[in-house]
Amino acid sequence: MKSILITLTLLITFVGNLMAKEHQLAIVIHGGAGTIVKQNLSDEKEALIKAKLTESINAGYAVLQKGGDSTDAVIAAINVLENSPLFNAGVGAVYTKDGKHELDASIMRGSDLQAGAVAGVSHVKNPINAAKEVMLHSPHVMLSNRGADNFAKQHGLKTVDNNYFDTDYRYQQWQAINHKNKVSLSEDLLKTDYKFGTVGAVAIDKNGTISAGTSTGGMTNKAFGRIGDSPIIGAGTYADNRSCGVSATGHGEFFIRYAVAHDICARVLYKQQSLQHSADVVINHNLKQAGGDGGIVGLDKQGNPVMVFNTAGMYRGYKTEKSETKVYIYNTK
Amino acid sequence: MKSILITLTLLITFVGNLMAKEHQLAIVIHGGAGTIVKQNLSDEKEALIKAKLTESINAGYAVLQKGGDSTDAVIAAINVLENSPLFNAGVGAVYTKDGKHELDASIMRGSDLQAGAVAGVSHVKNPINAAKEVMLHSPHVMLSNRGADNFAKQHGLKTVDNNYFDTDYRYQQWQAINHKNKVSLSEDLLKTDYKFGTVGAVAIDKNGTISAGTSTGGMTNKAFGRIGDSPIIGAGTYADNRSCGVSATGHGEFFIRYAVAHDICARVLYKQQSLQHSADVVINHNLKQAGGDGGIVGLDKQGNPVMVFNTAGMYRGYKTEKSETKVYIYNTK
Repeated sequence: MKSILITLTLLITFVGNLMAKEHQLAIVIHGGAGTIVKQNLSDEKEALIKAKLTESINAGYAVLQKGGDSTDAVIAAINVLENSPLFNAGVGAVYTKDGKHELDASIMRGSDLQAGAVAGVSHVKNPINAAKEVMLHSPHVMLSNRGADNFAKQHGLKTVDNNYFDTDYRYQQWQAINHKNKVSLSEDLLKTDYKFGTVGAVAIDKNGTISAGTSTGGMTNKAFGRIGDSPIIGAGTYADNRSCGVSATGHGEFFIRYAVAHDICARVLYKQQSLQHSADVVINHNLKQAGGDGGIVGLDKQGNPVMVFNTAGMYRGYKTEKSETKVYIYNTK
Repeated sequence: MKSILITLTLLITFVGNLMAKEHQLAIVIHGGAGTIVKQNLSDEKEALIKAKLTESINAGYAVLQKGGDSTDAVIAAINVLENSPLFNAGVGAVYTKDGKHELDASIMRGSDLQAGAVAGVSHVKNPINAAKEVMLHSPHVMLSNRGADNFAKQHGLKTVDNNYFDTDYRYQQWQAINHKNKVSLSEDLLKTDYKFGTVGAVAIDKNGTISAGTSTGGMTNKAFGRIGDSPIIGAGTYADNRSCGVSATGHGEFFIRYAVAHDICARVLYKQQSLQHSADVVINHNLKQAGGDGGIVGLDKQGNPVMVFNTAGMYRGYKTEKSETKVYIYNTK
């Protein structure tokens, strides 16, 4: 009799948990997509990149595990990548035509569709933090250039001299491309390592709130104050608790024209298709046909991670309640 | 026998025309939405505004009638409004916090999803022409600030001193708002005349190509290099021959967060709902609930004009093959 009662209690608890738990905690990140092939990447650099991706995922997931919100998880994960010279975001950002650095970032929260973005900042140490500050403490969504730097400074964010973002590696790239007088999406004109280096993260917290963020140094040798997709809500970043969260990386002009991040979420919401299928159609069919290289990472509202790209590789990885931290570089299909 | 042949021939011609003719030539424009109420507008100003809207519509429609493409029709219509001090675009643009003018514009072509945009230009006489130049003759979609001005100058567009955009009317506005140290969406803090003044146009040509464009002086007293929805493809402007073309006006931050222009086209394409219904849901339900004031004009792929706003009024009008030029100001519901 007693054993039946215990079994019943366990059963009720189990079912109760199942019903209460409609989603899992999860974070998925990327460090850029492009023609990343084994022969262009030394074992040492591959190990460094995988270690940094792992550090980023775990930093973001730790926030979720402590009961923190998904916006802070996205910030924690992206800060690790911005602070590493391995990626084209924060330190390690590429050089503009003028030999300077102009960085872009955006973030969005799916519970209330609040969003913030900065374009062309030169002095904010972590552009994604400036985007969050705009989202939380400004009547605006998008600030640009000096104005965005001033806003960040007034709100107490850490600022640096522009040369803080310098790295020899990016400088060599810029020199090589500048001689050809070509514009490059980060590194696609370089023989040594073809990846674009934009970084991004999407997380879902205990409340089921999905946040997505993206941060980049833009294009090597970019001129004319070019703005890519990373600071554009709907292109490089979108989050809506009803559908999904998406962060993109790649040839930004195509991602703007195809409103990639919003289009993927719209397909999930309006066509009732899975995030995986929606992302496959947009990235591997629509963008590929148009000649737009790149990829996205995303989470659906159950916390299932998706990583889709039409290039040879994408620095990427995720952790969920059901899965340990996983990191990948090449196309594993 | 002969009469039967003639009847048959006529019938075949008639059916042939029906099949060949799946859309009509059409253009729809707006000159801003807001709390536009009769008592705030003198009969003289109302007459001036209606005359200028009519001139804009007819200028755009003339391009379509001559067999021109919808991009040039949009440019022709918007140039009329940019060159008039009555609207917050081109001459008559509002003042920034620094007492200058920073203008934004974007344009998109629905046949191939090509797009161009400029943000924060200070010297291009007609920002919408700079957006077209970016679309047609740049590898980029979005250029900003000095870089965008330089690009326009290098491509032979007419440039002016920043004070070309000055008007006493806007200066008084800026002074009034500057004293309150408030940011205004064009005119919403002013007692005299509440409209926002962004302008836009959507046209469909003989090939069924839909183009949409938007041009604005932004917010009175704006600071921090704020970028609104007008230069954002997917927010203020979107065009896709498979669904519709949309140009928006209103509280830009909401239009960015809700990706209004792309969302309306996505609903038409994915939910198979009419443009009218899709725009009603987004503008009169979603945006209204969120507190986002504004409206849109659009054309579906048959060339049916739609004008939807959740404010007291919107300067607007259209002309199609089936209809004479119509212009409206107030909510006629």
